[in-house]
Amino acid sequence: MLRSIEQEIQVTFRYAVHFTTGVFDGDNPLLRDVIRSGTDSPRKVLFVVDDGVREHHPGLLGAIDAYCRRNADVLTPVGMPLIVPGGERVKNDPRHVDAILQAVHEGGICRHSYIVAVGGGAVIDMAGYAAATAHRGVRLIRIPTTVLSQNDGAVGVKNSVNAFHKKNFLGAFAPPVAVINDARFLTTLSERDWRSGISEAVKVALLKDPGFFGFLEQEASALRGRDMIAMQRLIHRCAELHLQHIAGSGDPFELGSSRPLDFGHWAAHKLEQLTDYGLRHGEAVAIGIALDATYSFLRGYLPETDWRRVLNVLADVGFALYTPEMGQYLDRPEHPRSVLRGLTEFREHLGGELTIMLLRGIGDGFEV
Amino acid sequence: MLRSIEQEIQVTFRYAVHFTTGVFDGDNPLLRDVIRSGTDSPRKVLFVVDDGVREHHPGLLGAIDAYCRRNADVLTPVGMPLIVPGGERVKNDPRHVDAILQAVHEGGICRHSYIVAVGGGAVIDMAGYAAATAHRGVRLIRIPTTVLSQNDGAVGVKNSVNAFHKKNFLGAFAPPVAVINDARFLTTLSERDWRSGISEAVKVALLKDPGFFGFLEQEASALRGRDMIAMQRLIHRCAELHLQHIAGSGDPFELGSSRPLDFGHWAAHKLEQLTDYGLRHGEAVAIGIALDATYSFLRGYLPETDWRRVLNVLADVGFALYTPEMGQYLDRPEHPRSVLRGLTEFREHLGGELTIMLLRGIGDGFEV
Repeated sequence: MLRSIEQEIQVTFRYAVHFTTGVFDGDNPLLRDVIRSGTDSPRKVLFVVDDGVREHHPGLLGAIDAYCRRNADVLTPVGMPLIVPGGERVKNDPRHVDAILQAVHEGGICRHSYIVAVGGGAVIDMAGYAAATAHRGVRLIRIPTTVLSQNDGAVGVKNSVNAFHKKNFLGAFAPPVAVINDARFLTTLSERDWRSGISEAVKVALLKDPGFFGFLEQEASALRGRDMIAMQRLIHRCAELHLQHIAGSGDPFELGSSRPLDFGHWAAHKLEQLTDYGLRHGEAVAIGIALDATYSFLRGYLPETDWRRVLNVLADVGFALYTPEMGQYLDRPEHPRSVLRGLTEFREHLGGELTIMLLRGIGDGFEV
Repeated sequence: MLRSIEQEIQVTFRYAVHFTTGVFDGDNPLLRDVIRSGTDSPRKVLFVVDDGVREHHPGLLGAIDAYCRRNADVLTPVGMPLIVPGGERVKNDPRHVDAILQAVHEGGICRHSYIVAVGGGAVIDMAGYAAATAHRGVRLIRIPTTVLSQNDGAVGVKNSVNAFHKKNFLGAFAPPVAVINDARFLTTLSERDWRSGISEAVKVALLKDPGFFGFLEQEASALRGRDMIAMQRLIHRCAELHLQHIAGSGDPFELGSSRPLDFGHWAAHKLEQLTDYGLRHGEAVAIGIALDATYSFLRGYLPETDWRRVLNVLADVGFALYTPEMGQYLDRPEHPRSVLRGLTEFREHLGGELTIMLLRGIGDGFEV
């Protein structure tokens, strides 16, 4: 019998997360520079824009159009920007992915062309999935417009849509060519959306960076008061820690079982579902963090002072740490409406052995 | 302004191409061992089977069933094998991908479960696309059943289906966890399918390995006479060179423009289309190789003796090197029915700058 051929294949992705204000302002060179790098002929660009963002920024489509005209030597827009609904529903309806694929087909978008997605996390996820599968991967530039997507979802390597009523059932691991975080989009966020992204920063600080946790404690009331400088520092450090985690994990495409950045997430996913998505993801994560920190304390891993610091910082930025759905069916952990059922569902989602993170101290997470 | 965060992400994939005979024979441990590695509980497995292969191997479904029963400690089949049509049509109809996704959903297949695809290149491509996108990647084991898929398509990192009448419009770069090449499936191939895979071996020998080219010359009549030992050696070496190319290219997911293994392919793709896929891919590639070798000779790059060796080996294994479609509209290179139009279409497919390979000698390709 012929011997087996063993092969190791290494793939290297490089991309940058940029910070700016007013990405489509006439004299802002950032997007132009990102697209121009490595080519001397204009590239085709398909814009996909979150309808909610367009509503809050009435000049946005005009600004995109003017930006393209001014930089016609570098980018050629393919048709009008595709406007899609914001929020989770854009991931539920396959027609939005199909509309992007249709535009790729009709516009002659190739692997060296660009899709630029402007919107919240759901729009970025959905457009990223279309970009990842068209021609096995059209270049994607993400311009996330919420705190949560700027510091977490949009800086990573995942793209996905929902199917069969399962969140992220379809997806692809595919890094973008660049992420552009534009502070101006944050100015029009509702109070809840402004706050929602902060819990992911608390989470990553708790797992990885006690200094960052100290910063969050110190700036909690500034963050609550919509101080943009504090928020920009939060987003920058959170995105940096997130990226370092992905790059340093040894398993960026999650081929194994370990996903330690899921701290607080088994309860969060379940609570989002139990509240019919009345709780935003970041709000549910805040509760999930409080739960897992409390469990870490009760099991004797986490000192009481540290535990109180965790609850305090979440409360100080304005999160509610209780929702009635938490208290139901706690004596029946497999009941579909028990939050504890989230542990089972989390294992099914991840597959394989379930590991969750607990805390031994601020900045010191460990897997159990 | 905050500084940009520059990130480099490295992803490492490891997989093996195994060679066996009778993969579903009761005492064959290979598939069992592949699935067992790294786990101690049985894994769910969804089988996807090419209808044409099932027809030629009437005992196949029974053998798969018996194999699963015998190895119930390692693998748990999810439902009956999904039977799908063979050939390109399976990539044209999105219902086949949907059927696999539905089975993944209903069977509770997770990222640590397996899809085992048994069939020709088209079935492997289609099932691989479904596997790559479900849960952002279910583990895929490819069991290719044709010469062409065993030595070329199924050993690589691409998965795809057709859409908008464009070949491979949708796809994903995603390596399998293993490839199992089973010689028994080759015994029932038609003469054309047996021969079709040989042209890819000629191609890769011409570009990379003069010794392998010598082997092909020497074994041409044995190959034509369906000598299985010669064919197994051909497949092994061709698969090995193909994998080395992918791993050593520095760009396995083709993020840049260079795709030097496309030698002879600009004309091949066009001829397949011009003959309404009456020509098989391998037959068209044989003609494409003859064309590009001839062009290399006429431009003075390739010595006449080498050129004659190329044409001879293709003829000796039984390829026809002419089809009437080649001679039409040569004076009108942009005419839709001119083979020369294939150059334009090839550039559009790849995107960016068009580079094609020519030859300076046997085993010595270069890009122009």
